[in-house]
Order: sequence, then C-alpha cells, then structure tokens
Amino acid sequence: MASSERLVVIGGDAAGMSAASQLRRMRPDVEIVAFERGPHTSYSACGMPYLVGGLVDDPRALVARSPAGFAKLHIDARVMHEVEEIDLAERRVRGRRRDDGTSFDEGFDRLLVATGTVPIRPPLPGSDAAGIYGLGILDDGIRLRRAVDEERPRRAVIVGGGYIGLEMAEALLERGLDVTVVEAAATVLGTLDPDMGELVGQALRDAGAKLSLDEPVTGFETRGGTVAAVVTAARTHPADIVVLGIGVRPNAALARAAGIPLGETGAIKVNDRMQTAVDGVWAAGDCVESFNLVSRRPVHFALGTIANKQGRIAGINLGGGYARFPGVLGSAVTKICTVEVARTGLQEREARAAGFEFVTARIDSRTRSGYYPGVGKITVKVLAERGSGKLLGAQIVGAEGSGKRIDVFATALAAGMTAEEFSYLDLSYAPPFAPVWDPVLIAARKAAEAL
Amino acid sequence: MASSERLVVIGGDAAGMSAASQLRRMRPDVEIVAFERGPHTSYSACGMPYLVGGLVDDPRALVARSPAGFAKLHIDARVMHEVEEIDLAERRVRGRRRDDGTSFDEGFDRLLVATGTVPIRPPLPGSDAAGIYGLGILDDGIRLRRAVDEERPRRAVIVGGGYIGLEMAEALLERGLDVTVVEAAATVLGTLDPDMGELVGQALRDAGAKLSLDEPVTGFETRGGTVAAVVTAARTHPADIVVLGIGVRPNAALARAAGIPLGETGAIKVNDRMQTAVDGVWAAGDCVESFNLVSRRPVHFALGTIANKQGRIAGINLGGGYARFPGVLGSAVTKICTVEVARTGLQEREARAAGFEFVTARIDSRTRSGYYPGVGKITVKVLAERGSGKLLGAQIVGAEGSGKRIDVFATALAAGMTAEEFSYLDLSYAPPFAPVWDPVLIAARKAAEAL
Repeated sequence: MASSERLVVIGGDAAGMSAASQLRRMRPDVEIVAFERGPHTSYSACGMPYLVGGLVDDPRALVARSPAGFAKLHIDARVMHEVEEIDLAERRVRGRRRDDGTSFDEGFDRLLVATGTVPIRPPLPGSDAAGIYGLGILDDGIRLRRAVDEERPRRAVIVGGGYIGLEMAEALLERGLDVTVVEAAATVLGTLDPDMGELVGQALRDAGAKLSLDEPVTGFETRGGTVAAVVTAARTHPADIVVLGIGVRPNAALARAAGIPLGETGAIKVNDRMQTAVDGVWAAGDCVESFNLVSRRPVHFALGTIANKQGRIAGINLGGGYARFPGVLGSAVTKICTVEVARTGLQEREARAAGFEFVTARIDSRTRSGYYPGVGKITVKVLAERGSGKLLGAQIVGAEGSGKRIDVFATALAAGMTAEEFSYLDLSYAPPFAPVWDPVLIAARKAAEAL
Repeated sequence: MASSERLVVIGGDAAGMSAASQLRRMRPDVEIVAFERGPHTSYSACGMPYLVGGLVDDPRALVARSPAGFAKLHIDARVMHEVEEIDLAERRVRGRRRDDGTSFDEGFDRLLVATGTVPIRPPLPGSDAAGIYGLGILDDGIRLRRAVDEERPRRAVIVGGGYIGLEMAEALLERGLDVTVVEAAATVLGTLDPDMGELVGQALRDAGAKLSLDEPVTGFETRGGTVAAVVTAARTHPADIVVLGIGVRPNAALARAAGIPLGETGAIKVNDRMQTAVDGVWAAGDCVESFNLVSRRPVHFALGTIANKQGRIAGINLGGGYARFPGVLGSAVTKICTVEVARTGLQEREARAAGFEFVTARIDSRTRSGYYPGVGKITVKVLAERGSGKLLGAQIVGAEGSGKRIDVFATALAAGMTAEEFSYLDLSYAPPFAPVWDPVLIAARKAAEAL
C-alpha cells in the first residue's frame, strides 16, 4: 500500500477508535481520520447512570481518550462532524460540522463504519418536549445530570424497564427523586425470563421506586413545551423529568443509503473479520450484526464489550493481520439498587424461538458460606437442551458477589459444555466467597437431573 | 441386595457424609453407620480461621449437620469413635471410643474410607509442647479460639505460609496479636508462583504481620511444658502461641495397613467412580488421589469442594447409579487481609515438572471501571502452552472482586481452551464490576501474543 493510504472511520467511540488505535500500532504510515457527530470520543456510555446519580462528578472521567489524546497517536479525530453521505463510487464521505454548520468532504481508501445505535424515540404526541431525555451519547447524560442539578425536578418517570432504564431509576432514586418506571411488559428487564425479572422489580420497589407494569405509553402531556406527564392507557403519571430507556436500534441508515448490505436484524452484515459485502468497507460495534454462539443465528447487541472486541479485530485485519470474531452470547451484568443482575446465552423465549427443547432449573442459594458475615441470597436459573444436555443460557439475580458468576456460564457456553459436565467443574471455594457447592454448580446439577 | 446390607463409613466429614446422604436418598433400605474420631460431623474446616478471628462466634455455625441431624436421615453417625483396624477378610472395622475408651467392632458389606488428612507435625524438639496448635479437626479450632479468648496471648508465630497459615495470621491480627509468619521458602503461598506470592506477602506486611522468609524451623523453646519460642537457623521468635500450618498429608495409614492400595502421591488410589482396588471398598475426599485435568497426572489436594463432589459421586455409585468424577484443577481462592488470592491449573513449577513448554503473561489492571467508586488493583498471571496455545493455569491477586474471577479460568481449563479463544470470550461488563476489557481477558490476550 502507498504511504498516502487513508482510513476513514465514521463514529468515534468504542469500536471505531479501538480499530483506529489497533491499526496505528501495526501501521504507522496509514492516515487515519475519524468523524464523530458528538463532542466526545471513546467514552463510556455505560457510565452515564453513575454520572447522573452522582457517583461520578466529572464527565471527563468517562472519556477514555480525547481527540487530543488521539492526536498524539497521529489519529485525526474530528468531533462535532456528522457524516451525512457515504459515496462508494467516489470513495468519499460528506457531511456537516455540528458546531459551525460548514460542510466537509473527505476521500478514503478504506472505510470503517462504526456508527453505533440510535435510541428509540416513540412516535407519540409530545415526545419531543423539553424535559424528555434519551441516552444516546455522552452529551445526553451530561445534559440530564445538569438538569437534575439545576432544575431540581421532584418526579421522574422512566419509560422502559431495560438495563438503562433501571440503572437510571436507581440513579434518580439516589438523587432523591420520586421515581416511577413505566414498562409495557409484565415484568422489567425483558432480557431475563419474567420470573427472574420479577426479582429485580421487587428490589426496585424495595428501594422506593414505583413500577407501573403492563402499561404501554400512549403519549406525553406538555405544558409550555415542557413535559408534564407520561400518559398510558391505565393512567397519567405526572413528571418533571422523563427518561426514555425503550431501547436502541442499529444506526445503519447511512450504510444502507450507500448500498452497504444490512442483515436480517437491520444491522450491518459483516463477516468474522468485520468486512462488509463492499470491498474496502468494514464495520464494527453496535451498528453490526453478530453471530450468536448458542442459537447460531444473527443477532444484534449493543454492548461496549462486543464493540471493543470487534473494533480490535477490525484494526488487526485492516493492519494486515488476521483475526476472526468468534461470536457473542449476549452476556450482561448490572447492579440495580441492592441486587446484581446478570444473564448470558438464551432466555426461555429466545431458546423457544431458536427451536430448542430444553429444561430449566432455578435454585436459591447463598453468595458466601452461611456463617460468613455479609452472606446474601442468590438465585440462579439455567436452561439446558434436551438430548444433548448442553447448557443454553443462565440468569442470576442476587446480592453482592452474584453478578460476575455469570462469566463461568459464558465460558461454558462458548465451550459447548453440558449441564452435567458443568456441575462437576472444579471451581474455587472459601467461606468469604461461596458455599462449598457454588450456586452455579447447584443450578447446573439441578438442570442435569431434570434432563 | 438384602435389606440388611450395611455400609460403614470411616470419617464423618464432607466426603463421608455426602456419600452417606446421597446413598440414603437413593436407597432407604441400606443400613449406614459412620465412625468419626472427633466430636463433630460435617463441619467446615475452612471456617476455623473465622472462628478464631472472631467473625464467627458459635462453633455450631460451622457444623452443617450434627449426628442428631443424620439420625433423622436414618444415618447412624457415631462421633468420638476412632477406627483402628479395617479387617478385609472378616469385613469388619474395629476401634476404640475416645470418650470412654471402650472398644467397638462392626461388620460391613461395603466400606467407604473417608479419613481425610492429618496435619503435618514437624519431628522437631518441643513440637508437642502446650500452646502449639495444629488445625486438623474442628475441635482444634475451638481449642485455639478458647486459648486466644482466655489466655490472652500477645505474640503468635505461624509456622508455614500456606493458605491456612495466612488465614490464621489474618485472624490473629484481627484479635490484636503480634503475628509473625515463619516460612521455609522465599515467599509465602507456595501454590502461587513466587512473583504472585510476594504480592500476598506484601499485603500481610501492610496489615502489620512480620514475615520471616527463607527460615526453616529447627525447633521450639519451651518453658514448663509450654511453648516459649520458635527457633530457626537465623533467629529465635518468642511466642505465646504457635499455629502450625505446614500442610497436611492424606490420612491413609489405616487403608494401607489393611492392604488397600495407595497411589504414587501416598493417597488412596481410586477409579473415577471412587472405587478402590478392593472389591466393595470405596474411598473419597482428602484421603484419595485425584486426576489433574491439565497435567494428566495423579495429584493429592485436600479441598472441601473436591471432597464434597467425590462424596456425592461415591454415594451415587454405591446407590446403584452411575457417576464419574472428571478430575481436578486445584482451584482455590482465599482472602488474606486486603487482598483476594486465587489459582487454578498449573503454576510454573508444576508446568515444568509435567514437561510443558509454556509462556507466561502477567498484567496489572483494575477490578472495576476506573471512575467507579471502590475500584481496586488486580494482577492476573496466565500460563499457556507453546504449540497448542492451550491455557495451563492462572493466578490472581487483587482487591475485592478479584478472587472469584479464577472460576472463568477453571472453566476454560476444563474445556481445554486456548489463550486466543479465551481472549475473545463474551464476558459480562458493567462499570461496578469490571473494566470494559475484563482483566482476565487482557491477561489471556497478552499470553496469546507471547505465544
């Protein structure tokens, strides 16, 4: 390649900048230009609830590397630059600066699309009112934090009981607000089975949140352009502030308009090396489709861990190396008030959709030896396939020390382990850390016995 | 089988009583008699440091099930009964009651040997003095707790810097004693590589313990039959109380005398179903030899997790079921003062002894996102085989949240995973639990790059 080769990256967060940094390590000669529509690069979107809740005070703490930091690596990261068009015939991107409104136009030899997600905004009356916050980019979190600090809202309504919604519920409880979570489904956390999600719902109620379940939102009442209430079929929830946590969708419009093929999930289709179907065009992170190792189907997850791994793999391959992304399990963990919550693999609904027949086992145990101070409750649920006996997924809700246990299941799922094999794993034990039979082993054993 | 069939169990702790309970679930008709030389059944030996340190006040909390509890399961658990002879020709065991000195003699159809370990006592002058405590059975821990409560010793010397020794060091620091750990090797915790053991040694020093390393003990000074000092080649350590934590050896003398074959480790040889070479004689727990899944060699570990699993498997097979014990990894975790310490698989010395060529990778990272309150340091070391790239072992020392991460490596070792495969595992992430690249992934990636 000529030394004037240029990589353009669209999107300055985890996937895009991991790829850029990895490529830079391997190829000092390639010119790298990254365009980011927001004012920040490489930030921890997952940290926004802690910024709003006050555990983190300085938003800069959430930024892993700023444009100035990338400049030291000779990576030209241009913030407030919104790419509006990918011209594959001319090998150029075109767009507009969000600070001064001027347009830009940049050629590329190779392109990496890392445009992330867009938060879903319901097409409902009033949804554009002031006081309604989505959480897409770091700036959204900064604005919400400022609103809580300065406007002293009293009543918050969270629309959507997913991870972000519940983390925001906890954050706003911490700030002393009255918090109501409005969720269309019968339990919160739809990525868990309802029986497990209910445990999380109870923890939220115990912490003082109100949960309004089975209540799809039908609109927003506004007063002078500012939100005043969230309206559902059942009732009206007065609100000084509203946080939307309804989910995200892959931000693939730009790619689709350029003719880069998407997959069945609506995210950009890539191979294991993060190449799209268009020569010289790569994609990684929240905007791409992944392969689920258990269902063996395409899936879309928007998770920082996956984005970082895919970015690294794109960077290695762009740099002339060889790396393949094996796939995902949808592993996730979070802390909601007093409980830790985690899942990996398939939940019941997903397992059924993928055509599996399976048994489930759910056990209650303890996080430590019963006599050790600080011992708490833990509930573990396991799905295992009939016939093969293979583990399909696991979910955990429990006290401190519960959540990260999910990684043992994630590792076993990646290895295709059976419930029986899992139940005799030589896991570590000491009274401050576990009962002598770790709860994950008890759950797997119960599943093995049910098979 | 006739309804008068009788199983005799020698040893009333984890392995023996797990087997008895499992058998009872499957076979209500079999008569089960268990002989235990101490006064307690099914206790948590691992809990003794917390009893001595005062985190646990009532020794009964360490007993999972008493003889009265076993009686309800129609299991006849006879404490203070020391079996002194196994007569295989007559199918009888004979022994002496430790309470009243009377002898007993009991026939069996099948026998389970679960005699555990004996603490190593150095054959040194003065080693039988009062004030020197081994920690073999729960009663030893109760006696030590009472001595600390009532005799108010000021200076404690721990002989041996293994898990038990260091846990006791922490416990006695908690009780306000001056604590010195005397260790023959150059670092504490010989089941870790020296560079990792040194991190634990530093944590102990920071907590106020004195470490005297490279100092084999040569004897004990006594005064009026009570210990007064621990003597090494280098110096004399005055002591009001001494705790021996030099290790344990399989308690296999009874089996050997009866002609039950031992393995090369000196522990009883069993097959994967926990059968000895003698028809109708089974063995499980700390007195048997296990198969190391990584080195593929016989090993002896005295760990409650293994004992419980083996006991369960013996019980299933005794009950007419079918279960095989897959093997062990030597996974272990503990908390020593401010650090959590864990290991699984082979350390460098063991890997060399087993003929492996390997790379090591050691990384420093953090337990949580850098901005999340309570974040601490974690060091992870990984061994991976040259050629195959397979993981051979891992060691972790770090702040709260570090230790149980070892289970991810244990699972990967059981599955025969390579460092490269491991480095892309879809592990869970959220700021309260991990950086976006979990430290275990960073360590595996570094090992993969070194291969």
